[in-house]
Amino acid sequence: MSQYWSPAVQRLTPYVPGEQPQERVIKLNTNENPYPPAPGVSEALREYAVDHLRLYPDPTSRALRETLAAAYDVSVAETFVGNGSDEILAFAFQAFFCHGAPLDVPAITYSFYPVYANLYGVELRKHPLNAQWEVDLDALSGTGERSGVIFANPNAPTGHAHSLDAIEALLQRVTDRVVLVDEAYVDFGAETAVALIGRYPNLLVTGTFSKSRSLAGLRLGYAMGSPELIDGLQRVKDSFNSYPVDSLASLVGIEALKDKDHFDACREHVITTRERTRQRLETLGFEVLPSKANFILTQHPDYEGAQLFAGLRERSILVRHFNTTELSNFLRISIGTDDEMDSLLEALETLCR
Amino acid sequence: MSQYWSPAVQRLTPYVPGEQPQERVIKLNTNENPYPPAPGVSEALREYAVDHLRLYPDPTSRALRETLAAAYDVSVAETFVGNGSDEILAFAFQAFFCHGAPLDVPAITYSFYPVYANLYGVELRKHPLNAQWEVDLDALSGTGERSGVIFANPNAPTGHAHSLDAIEALLQRVTDRVVLVDEAYVDFGAETAVALIGRYPNLLVTGTFSKSRSLAGLRLGYAMGSPELIDGLQRVKDSFNSYPVDSLASLVGIEALKDKDHFDACREHVITTRERTRQRLETLGFEVLPSKANFILTQHPDYEGAQLFAGLRERSILVRHFNTTELSNFLRISIGTDDEMDSLLEALETLCR
Repeated sequence: MSQYWSPAVQRLTPYVPGEQPQERVIKLNTNENPYPPAPGVSEALREYAVDHLRLYPDPTSRALRETLAAAYDVSVAETFVGNGSDEILAFAFQAFFCHGAPLDVPAITYSFYPVYANLYGVELRKHPLNAQWEVDLDALSGTGERSGVIFANPNAPTGHAHSLDAIEALLQRVTDRVVLVDEAYVDFGAETAVALIGRYPNLLVTGTFSKSRSLAGLRLGYAMGSPELIDGLQRVKDSFNSYPVDSLASLVGIEALKDKDHFDACREHVITTRERTRQRLETLGFEVLPSKANFILTQHPDYEGAQLFAGLRERSILVRHFNTTELSNFLRISIGTDDEMDSLLEALETLCR
Repeated sequence: MSQYWSPAVQRLTPYVPGEQPQERVIKLNTNENPYPPAPGVSEALREYAVDHLRLYPDPTSRALRETLAAAYDVSVAETFVGNGSDEILAFAFQAFFCHGAPLDVPAITYSFYPVYANLYGVELRKHPLNAQWEVDLDALSGTGERSGVIFANPNAPTGHAHSLDAIEALLQRVTDRVVLVDEAYVDFGAETAVALIGRYPNLLVTGTFSKSRSLAGLRLGYAMGSPELIDGLQRVKDSFNSYPVDSLASLVGIEALKDKDHFDACREHVITTRERTRQRLETLGFEVLPSKANFILTQHPDYEGAQLFAGLRERSILVRHFNTTELSNFLRISIGTDDEMDSLLEALETLCR
């Protein structure tokens, strides 16, 4: 605490990301992609005329947004890009969720949402997951005044994804405020809601280049929605930072979007490894929640999450353990290469013996 | 306007940066550096192992901050980095200037400050410049309740810089709230206030890699101040975006900081060209405000600013013209290469004949 801090800032509880270890470990704790970005990225960086860095980037990121629009079959006016989808989520909280009424959110979801809510003074109305650890879309879209609805699909850290039909049914019930569907993990087996944008002007879909496009180090995210929602994001962005997406991030993002074959090969590989890992964990007695993401949430009836987390850590394998009542027995394990998952499974076999 | 926007966002008036033209022009409108970044930048990008981009960056940007701390002779705990100094200024408004009292600011200064104030609901107390177009530090540090003091040194778009002694005198008068000195242009002939940090725990100095280090396209800025101020910035950043500085920006920033010879050569070249340009403009009858920045603010007694701006634009020379009562007769001209300034001067000679 400091006398110089603004009172609201004294009350913040910042988000704590998973560790970024310096030593050599098997890193299955922050849902990174085990495969490299598209080969074109390397070439583009090698050939980049560095002199160009002396100039400001295009504040509208037009070239990147055109490539994004083409890849998702929407218009450029329906696209927005930012310094990671985290930045876009922050902009969205400020742009859409400050109406003096609660924001409907699942009780268990991406743990950054409560941090944004605190930063922008937004009250959250938290809805428990159902008995199958799924987001309860009926509860989320109940009657009563609200500032909006936000949920991740697939949800984090559970991995469950709702169908497009279920999401459309929610959009038919909530029409007065923004419904934000956070699709950070959508490319690993779930259906994107982007196809619904034309019919629901209050639908905002966010996504990231960090997971399925192997670019967590680059900080690039996107949003798609009706032009009036994109304009709202733009107003906040242009009151905060004219150029949040730098010239190299644009260049690399375009290369990543252009290589659909590499994108498909990587995500299919992750999906195959995920299913194989799930089966082998079940053989070891683990309960594994069905996942459409690049991670799985799992618990063992006979071993505590914290104990397994510590045991893996001793063997230089990092996974994520959440210190909350509901999740304390679970481990969230990112899907790595087949070799990395073999090492994980061997270690768990030893720990559960 | 949209029914979905938060009420406060409906009232925003976003910042409008200088144009980023697509066609070939002489671009003297956004204070970019005419010289390329340090040669090491090119090499570092060529040799970068792109596979590393699949991993998240270090959320604390430790390596970049260590290099920055060494370059400015401060401790790492006294440094902060962000996605351009614009992002850091936004964080600072939220972290330090929301105390329910006015923020003291020069009436003519960087036009993003009022935009931040609007975004975070901060009331501004604006103090006119003195008769020499200088920031009035006495007025800025007058008695009465305040949320803080912010000014740019050198100031934009005037170019005037106060001495370190004058800034220290202000710091002796304002001790209860943060004094933010925005040093975006300091490297072109002004004195940095970084040396005062150890003695004034309420002093925050911000700077950028965009101007003197030729990296506007990279979006990298820094702040230096007491550890308690850096902690305040960190709290806001960690409630907004865990990793605003991407892996490539860190890498390139480190290379730029390491090459002091290139840095000194570029800024000295800009200073020499600025003084030569000033003299030649005066020969043409222009009034040129004394500048310690990489731009000059100038007006002609017989020709209107808007008219000269349009005439230059027709000749594919872009400068900045501000549509405000006080500045409408002025042009702000960034310092380019000697050849670019020759073209500018020839064009002005024609226009003022």
